[in-house]
Amino acid sequence: MTTDEQSIRALVASWLHASKTGDIDTVLSLIADDAVFLLPGQPVMSKAEFAEKSRAQLRHDAPQIEASSDIQEIAVLGEWAFMRTRLTVAVTPAGGEPITRNGHTLTILRKQHGKWLLARDANLLA
Amino acid sequence: MTTDEQSIRALVASWLHASKTGDIDTVLSLIADDAVFLLPGQPVMSKAEFAEKSRAQLRHDAPQIEASSDIQEIAVLGEWAFMRTRLTVAVTPAGGEPITRNGHTLTILRKQHGKWLLARDANLLA
Repeated sequence: MTTDEQSIRALVASWLHASKTGDIDTVLSLIADDAVFLLPGQPVMSKAEFAEKSRAQLRHDAPQIEASSDIQEIAVLGEWAFMRTRLTVAVTPAGGEPITRNGHTLTILRKQHGKWLLARDANLLA
Repeated sequence: MTTDEQSIRALVASWLHASKTGDIDTVLSLIADDAVFLLPGQPVMSKAEFAEKSRAQLRHDAPQIEASSDIQEIAVLGEWAFMRTRLTVAVTPAGGEPITRNGHTLTILRKQHGKWLLARDANLLA
């Protein structure tokens, strides 16, 4: 495994840990400023919109979200890379039972100043 | 616009035209052998599975599908590229009225023997 691939795997681990603990600043530090998020049946989301949505999920009555990611492919193409994962997300509404959903992601990453960042993200969780 | 970007735009135009006219051989000639298709809420689809699904759509009683694509971004990274589009699909069931759906795509392309091919495709049409 190359250093770049190790760095990208570390990015995914940081992302999942920071998401779980509500550490939004760390999540945002892993995202390129011009990043674009694509979701089924929704408009394109910018980094600012992603940040706003993430902050809304910190409200005490928001559903708890816990994600795990099975990395199926990483291809490093110089200063860019792409990654394919199978994502499992457990969503627990306040006072409710968890609901588990599965889906794939296709992500473009970019190395900026030696650090890999998420640049484009298609999340196919239905 | 670079020659590579022009070639990728020509691939999209060929794809849409061949899909519309049921020319599956041409569509398949635009797809890398190791291509992977990602769709919301569905398992990963290989090129062979994509071909089978496309052939099923040629049955006389299958819904008619007409797609148009608004290319929002193409980035060429040497022998690889990625592309983001907004896709509009009109589905007309046999004897029924057309239903229009919108969604985005994120596609990885690869240049093989001088020809651009679709290599990974996330289709977020809900």
